[in-house]
Amino acid sequence: MRSIETTVEMSMKNAEQAVRAALAEQGFGIITEIDFAATLESKLGVKRDALKVLGACNPGFAHQALELDPSVALMLPCNVSLSPAQGGGTRVQVVDPRELVPDPEFAEIANSAAAQLQAAVDSLADSDTHRVD
Amino acid sequence: MRSIETTVEMSMKNAEQAVRAALAEQGFGIITEIDFAATLESKLGVKRDALKVLGACNPGFAHQALELDPSVALMLPCNVSLSPAQGGGTRVQVVDPRELVPDPEFAEIANSAAAQLQAAVDSLADSDTHRVD
Repeated sequence: MRSIETTVEMSMKNAEQAVRAALAEQGFGIITEIDFAATLESKLGVKRDALKVLGACNPGFAHQALELDPSVALMLPCNVSLSPAQGGGTRVQVVDPRELVPDPEFAEIANSAAAQLQAAVDSLADSDTHRVD
Repeated sequence: MRSIETTVEMSMKNAEQAVRAALAEQGFGIITEIDFAATLESKLGVKRDALKVLGACNPGFAHQALELDPSVALMLPCNVSLSPAQGGGTRVQVVDPRELVPDPEFAEIANSAAAQLQAAVDSLADSDTHRVD
């Protein structure tokens, strides 16, 4: 699973706030939210490590992609997962839009979206060096 | 975008109810919901055809897949899109899990999930012949 990722020295809760802010800075809003650990515990009674997924969507890119082919809706939004990192802190993984929509007709949009998601992840790493949880 | 799809002679609203019921019958709950038309109108001021996406998740399959590789969270849930069909009625498209997670290690889970999603879509077509909106 190709992803854009980093590990931040923050709790999951603080990492989620930082991720939301960094994505907003790049024009991505969060339009879905899944707490897999809570869902699987409630549905199956299994306990697993924390795992939260935020669905990030940049309306401009989404609109362009849907104009090209409305079926792209099946692959949106771009998921961002948050989970405890080995050794402490939080692992942040963002799906690579070029993997989500590998079709060449989406290449320009996917490349632009990937660059902005990478910038959001890079800014997290930067902000991380200036804060302590 | 490979998908499992059908067209039903129902309004979007009734189709959504029927889709939710058919998926529940196969053990898939809806854990996300995106109204792309409303979101794009509110964010960009663009008007487009109705387009709603429901995120379907079968907790058993999700758990199995996450045990194999937690990064699969980046590709979940299975999106189901509802949009007006050309000529009337509603087009229902379900992402094919074998396209979402093509990696061979997920083949067994993806095949089973695809079969159950196909059964849900087939049951929609059956129920459709017995109802009039």
